[in-house]
Amino acid sequence: MDIQQICRDAKSASRKLALLPTAQKNEALAALAGWLLANQELITGANRQDVADGRQADLTDALLDRLTLTPDRIRGMASDLRGVIDLPDPVGEIFEEQTLSNGLQLRKQRVPLGVLAVIYESRPNVTVDVASLALKSGNAVILRGGSETIRTNRVLVSGIHQSLQKAGIDAGVVQFIDDPDRELVNQLLKMHEYIDMLIPRGGAGLHRFCRENSTIPVITGGIGICHLFVDESADLARSLPVIRNAKIQRPTVCNSLDTLLVHRALAGDFIPRVIDCLKQDGVSFRLDAESARDAGLKLDEVVQAAGPQDFDTEWLALVLGIKVVEGLEEALAHIAAHSTGHSDGILTGDPANAARFTAEVDSAAVYVNASTRFTDGSQFGLGAEVAISTQRLHARGPMALRELTTYKWVAQGDYLARE
Amino acid sequence: MDIQQICRDAKSASRKLALLPTAQKNEALAALAGWLLANQELITGANRQDVADGRQADLTDALLDRLTLTPDRIRGMASDLRGVIDLPDPVGEIFEEQTLSNGLQLRKQRVPLGVLAVIYESRPNVTVDVASLALKSGNAVILRGGSETIRTNRVLVSGIHQSLQKAGIDAGVVQFIDDPDRELVNQLLKMHEYIDMLIPRGGAGLHRFCRENSTIPVITGGIGICHLFVDESADLARSLPVIRNAKIQRPTVCNSLDTLLVHRALAGDFIPRVIDCLKQDGVSFRLDAESARDAGLKLDEVVQAAGPQDFDTEWLALVLGIKVVEGLEEALAHIAAHSTGHSDGILTGDPANAARFTAEVDSAAVYVNASTRFTDGSQFGLGAEVAISTQRLHARGPMALRELTTYKWVAQGDYLARE
Repeated sequence: MDIQQICRDAKSASRKLALLPTAQKNEALAALAGWLLANQELITGANRQDVADGRQADLTDALLDRLTLTPDRIRGMASDLRGVIDLPDPVGEIFEEQTLSNGLQLRKQRVPLGVLAVIYESRPNVTVDVASLALKSGNAVILRGGSETIRTNRVLVSGIHQSLQKAGIDAGVVQFIDDPDRELVNQLLKMHEYIDMLIPRGGAGLHRFCRENSTIPVITGGIGICHLFVDESADLARSLPVIRNAKIQRPTVCNSLDTLLVHRALAGDFIPRVIDCLKQDGVSFRLDAESARDAGLKLDEVVQAAGPQDFDTEWLALVLGIKVVEGLEEALAHIAAHSTGHSDGILTGDPANAARFTAEVDSAAVYVNASTRFTDGSQFGLGAEVAISTQRLHARGPMALRELTTYKWVAQGDYLARE
Repeated sequence: MDIQQICRDAKSASRKLALLPTAQKNEALAALAGWLLANQELITGANRQDVADGRQADLTDALLDRLTLTPDRIRGMASDLRGVIDLPDPVGEIFEEQTLSNGLQLRKQRVPLGVLAVIYESRPNVTVDVASLALKSGNAVILRGGSETIRTNRVLVSGIHQSLQKAGIDAGVVQFIDDPDRELVNQLLKMHEYIDMLIPRGGAGLHRFCRENSTIPVITGGIGICHLFVDESADLARSLPVIRNAKIQRPTVCNSLDTLLVHRALAGDFIPRVIDCLKQDGVSFRLDAESARDAGLKLDEVVQAAGPQDFDTEWLALVLGIKVVEGLEEALAHIAAHSTGHSDGILTGDPANAARFTAEVDSAAVYVNASTRFTDGSQFGLGAEVAISTQRLHARGPMALRELTTYKWVAQGDYLARE
C-alpha cells in the first residue's frame, strides 16, 4: 500500500466533496442505510470469520463482543445513518457578520476541516459511524481499523464506496488502509501535508503513541477517570441511584464512574449504604485505610485496600474507588490531581458549593446532581460522535458534525486598500 | 534552568489566574502600561546593548530594526495595553444553553486554555503583547524570546512581574526562559503535561521544527504566499491601487502580496500598467516566459524571468510574481497548488465569479475587491493578535483573546441518571 498515494487521493477528493450540496451527501447516506439492510448476510458472514480468528487468537470475551456484528446491530447502524441524515449540515453556515468602519464586509463561513484520519480498534460500527459523520460534514476520511476486524471492515467499506458512487460522489472520499502492517501507521502519522486532523480511538497507549509521533494535529481523548463528590448537603437517598447509574449502567466506557469522594461528615452513614447497594450489582470497592476506618468498614473480598495507583486508574469494570475528604476544598484538590479532565460531578444541596465546583473543576463536562454517563454525543443532542476530546484545543467533550469543521474569513470591499 | 519546574509553576499559577475577576487582570495591565512609560530609560538602555551586540553579530538592518525599541515604540506598547484593557474578557461567557428533554440543563462556558508557550524571535514588543493577551484571557504563559533580545526581554519581564504583583497576581503566571540554550527548547516541546498550546512565531523552519518535535498541540501560521487574481471584469483603474497596497504598504509581513494572477484577456493592457506603477515604488517582477510574451514585455533588471521556485516563494520584499491565467478556473488551480492558505483575493466586477472564488479558495482569509493586507487582528476588530493561524484546527487567521480560550460543558440535573 502506498500511504502517500492514499493521502493524496483523499485530499484531492476532499476538495470536490467540500462543495457538494447537502442533498447529495444525504443521498449517499440513505443508499448506505439501504445497502446495510440488504447485505446483512454478506456482513455477518465476513464478521463470523473475524470473530472465529479472534477466538483462535485468544481475544477476551469483552473484545469479541465489541467485534461481533449481529443483524440487530446492523439495523442499529442503519438507523444511526438516518439520524445523521436528519442532522443539519454545518457546512456553509455564516456567522459573526459585521461591516467594519472602513466598509469592509467581514464574515466567518463554516468549511470542512478537509481530510481526517481515524485509527481505531475492534468495533466495526466505527467504520460506518465515522464515514457517515465525515461525509455529512464534507470531510474526506482515511480509515485504519484493527487487524482483528479487517474482513468485516473490507465488506463495510465496499458498501460505503458503492453508496457514494450511487449518489455520484467520488468514492475516494473514504479511503481504507486495507493492510494491518503497523509500519503504515507510522507513515500515516507524518502525512500532515494531506491530513488535517488525526483521531486515535483506543487505549491510552495509542493516544500517547500518536501524540509523540504524529506531525498531524491529534485529538486525544476517550480516557476518563471520572469522579463524583458527595457533599455534606446532598440528598443521600436521591444521590444513591445517580452514583449507581454512573458506575454500573455501562461500566466498560470512558464516562463511567471511577472514584467516589465522600464528605467526612457522611462517611460512617453513607459509605456503607453505597457499598450495600452496589455490591448487589457485583461491584467491588477500593478504599484507603483512613477512609475505611472513617466508614467503620473491615476489609474483605468486596471491600479491598486501595493500592497506590488505584485513584489514578480508569477501571472500565465493576470496581469503585471510594475516598473520604474533609470537604469541597479537598475534593477539588483530589480531582485536580487525579482527573483526566473527562467528566466529574458534585452531588449537593448547596448552590454556592455547586457554583464553586463548576467554576473550579476544569473537565470537559462538569455535572451538578447528574450522572457522569451523560457525556456522549447523542445524549448532548449532537446525534452521534467521532470522539470525546479531553484535550483543550479545537473542541472538548463529544465531537460531532460541527466539531469536524473550521471556518474561513470572507471579506468583501469596494476596491479597498488598507490605510 | 529547570524547564519542568518552570512548566509546573506556570500550570499551578494558571489555576488561580483562571478564576480571577476581570478588574484585577485589568489592574495589572494598567500597572504595566504605567511601568513602561516610567521606565523608558531602563528599557532603551538594555535594548541599546542588545542592538550593539546584534550589530557586532552582523544582523541584517531589517532584523536590527525589528529589535530596536525607541521611546515612540514604547509609548505604542503602553497604548496597545490600554487597548487590551478595553476589550471584553472572554472568560466565563455562557453559550449554547439548552434544557434537554430529560431535564438536564446544559450549557457551554468559556474557560482559558490554561498554559501557553510562545517561541519567538527579535521583536521585544511581542513579550508585552503576548503576556497581556494571555493575562486578559486568563492563561499563564511561558515566553522564550530570541537570544538577540534577551537583555531587553529581561527588563520587560521584570516590569511585567512587578505589575502583576502590584495587582495581587502571582507573578508565576508569566514565566520567562532566561537562557538562550536551544536544548531547553527541545525540552519545552515535550511538556504536554503542563502546556496546552504552543505558538511558534518565526520563519518556516521554526514552524516545521515545532510541528515535527512537539508533543504539545502547535498553532502553525504566519507564512503567507498571498495571491490576487485580476478577473476580466475587474475595474482596472480601481484595481491598481489595491494591488499596490497589497504589495508595498508593508512588504516584509506575511499578508503582503506575492503573486498577481491576471486574466489572459487583460495581459497585454494591464500587466504593463501594473509594472509601470509599482516599479516607481522599487518593486521588481518575476514572470514566466509565456506570461512575459502575453504581456508583450522584454526581460530586464526590473522584469525578470521567473525561476522554478518563484511561485512558491513568500517574498517578504519588494518583489512580485506575475502570471497570466486563462481565467478563473486556472486561477483557482494555481492558488490551490501554491497558496499557503493565508490570504488570497479576487478583483472582479462579476458577482458569480466572486461567489465561486470565495466558495472554492479555502484560505484563512478570502478577499473580494480588497487588499490582502487586512488579515490582521486589529484590522479585523480583535484588538490585537498572538498569531495568524494557517492551520485548520481550533482557529484560523488572526488569533486574539477568544482564540486563547476553550469551553467546558456544564450540566445540572435534579439527581438525574441516564436511562
